[in-house]
Amino acid sequence: MKSLRLKILVSLQFLPLTALALEPLPSWNDGPAKKSIIDFVEKVTRPGSPDFVPVSERIATFDNDGTLWCEQPVPVQLFFVLDRVKALAPQHPEWQTQEQFASILKGDLKTAMAGGERGLMELVMATHAGMTTVEFEQIVKDWIATAKLPKTGKLYTEMTYQPMLELLAYLRANGFKTFIVSGGGIEFMRPWAERVYGIPPEQVIGSSVKTKFEMREGGPVLVRLPEVNFIDDKGGKPVGINQHIGRRPLMAFGNSDGDRQMLEYTQSGGGVRFELLVLHDDAAREYAYGPALGLPDSKLAAFTQALYDEAKKGGWTVVSIKGDWKQVFAETNAVSH
Amino acid sequence: MKSLRLKILVSLQFLPLTALALEPLPSWNDGPAKKSIIDFVEKVTRPGSPDFVPVSERIATFDNDGTLWCEQPVPVQLFFVLDRVKALAPQHPEWQTQEQFASILKGDLKTAMAGGERGLMELVMATHAGMTTVEFEQIVKDWIATAKLPKTGKLYTEMTYQPMLELLAYLRANGFKTFIVSGGGIEFMRPWAERVYGIPPEQVIGSSVKTKFEMREGGPVLVRLPEVNFIDDKGGKPVGINQHIGRRPLMAFGNSDGDRQMLEYTQSGGGVRFELLVLHDDAAREYAYGPALGLPDSKLAAFTQALYDEAKKGGWTVVSIKGDWKQVFAETNAVSH
Repeated sequence: MKSLRLKILVSLQFLPLTALALEPLPSWNDGPAKKSIIDFVEKVTRPGSPDFVPVSERIATFDNDGTLWCEQPVPVQLFFVLDRVKALAPQHPEWQTQEQFASILKGDLKTAMAGGERGLMELVMATHAGMTTVEFEQIVKDWIATAKLPKTGKLYTEMTYQPMLELLAYLRANGFKTFIVSGGGIEFMRPWAERVYGIPPEQVIGSSVKTKFEMREGGPVLVRLPEVNFIDDKGGKPVGINQHIGRRPLMAFGNSDGDRQMLEYTQSGGGVRFELLVLHDDAAREYAYGPALGLPDSKLAAFTQALYDEAKKGGWTVVSIKGDWKQVFAETNAVSH
Repeated sequence: MKSLRLKILVSLQFLPLTALALEPLPSWNDGPAKKSIIDFVEKVTRPGSPDFVPVSERIATFDNDGTLWCEQPVPVQLFFVLDRVKALAPQHPEWQTQEQFASILKGDLKTAMAGGERGLMELVMATHAGMTTVEFEQIVKDWIATAKLPKTGKLYTEMTYQPMLELLAYLRANGFKTFIVSGGGIEFMRPWAERVYGIPPEQVIGSSVKTKFEMREGGPVLVRLPEVNFIDDKGGKPVGINQHIGRRPLMAFGNSDGDRQMLEYTQSGGGVRFELLVLHDDAAREYAYGPALGLPDSKLAAFTQALYDEAKKGGWTVVSIKGDWKQVFAETNAVSH
């Protein structure tokens, strides 16, 4: 026992000071955003604090597109849809003349997307259904391992935000359970979320198609049906949180009007709560967009003036990528575009 | 440090030997069922074992009614429905003459239940919807804290099975995440599952009604709608498992035909897996029922001969309450009826 004690003391002596100090969030600049996060976490985790929250209630929910990884020029899952249309085209000769598939196959995305949300949903059903859950998981795994963002030549998983990865790790080190609550497909995120974000499948909430249990010769399978089961966006986010978690988040993180209800639901939970929005204002290192900046909106990701006003009124933390983040992407300091 | 070490040694000396040996599953008789559980857990958790399974994949799913607590003479949630009809009757004068409410209020359960599954669903909607999720949670909490099984005068939470509570704890001590996967209402189980079973709300899967996000004067709420969202039974169990967990269970536990697909889905996952069924064959200490015993079936809980045959063929463990359990209920050795 004595020699073990000695060993520990000797080991401590040779540890670098930074490791002992455990400085959290190294890619965040010192400022009100970083301070608000750390102050809150210390307040709810310090034993004896009047705002102490037990570990079981330390639930943190994160939007994905635009919050944990880049959603420009279009959300990543749309690139996946387009690649799937191309991959499946040989089995669908009728797509050569049938809109909106024909335009996608010709590379004319503008015409292909003219159908709006309804047209997008039809594309999702044509590419995300008809196979088993195991087959779909493999399709996603293969795609995410190799597919690259056209403009940058980077893997999509390299377009994750370094400061947010640090935030996820910091919260988990403080006893939080971290969840994704995204409008994206639940089965599109699960195959890689554990490797990339450290978030296991059972902590991923998203939109989904219906599935059906079927007994086949090789054993039972779940078949993905071309029918919407759940849309995890806007008012759907609190619904999805209640359905999957059954508790209200203590902290919630988003970046658009699609996250507003999740943050409102979090805030109204009683006691201390924390809400944060990422504002994309860094045209040099990432993108600058959204009406709150007086800039044109992308249809799929709106940070409106009304959301900005609500954030200020509600005491929500607004992160300026330009001002608050030392480094944006996980793998590099800049993305060229 | 020396005095602390002394204290520990002195404490150890006075601990009973059983505690030091950490004997798992003390309420299980030695026999093939207990042995099959322990052998499996040791096989998948021992480092270097050819069947080793990492902690993240150690998912165990449990049916609730008849697996973790008693489901006779009727499932507990039905008592809740009946009590809610009585509690809400003053606000519904029309129920005095409207079937099936009128029969319930007169205490004539046989007539009240004549409507079968459809009639039951109408009762559930009349009693489980129309309020917010927060209000419903409080209703369940108040009821479960005080309501008692008519015949025994015991709290329903005292009708949980001691051997299964030990099994849940044993699995968790071995790195398993334990989930409930029940046909019962997800929001009926969550308010007490953590206290009674040690299973947090985010690990409870069940049937549900749809909910709707609404902004009210006091803040945002989720309103429970009288519309089925999901039925977590039979083929619905693998669907619910995939939706909530996104991984296949390593171990699954049930007691009826409603659990068959969950066990089949578990078994077909590849590698070593474990499936277990509880057979209710102890008329003296609990109940004996089910066609597999040549006994009449209760409509809501069937252990059929076909299920028994499938269990034997598939190498599933079948637990005889009479033979395998030293003690049945968590709070007492016997229930009088």
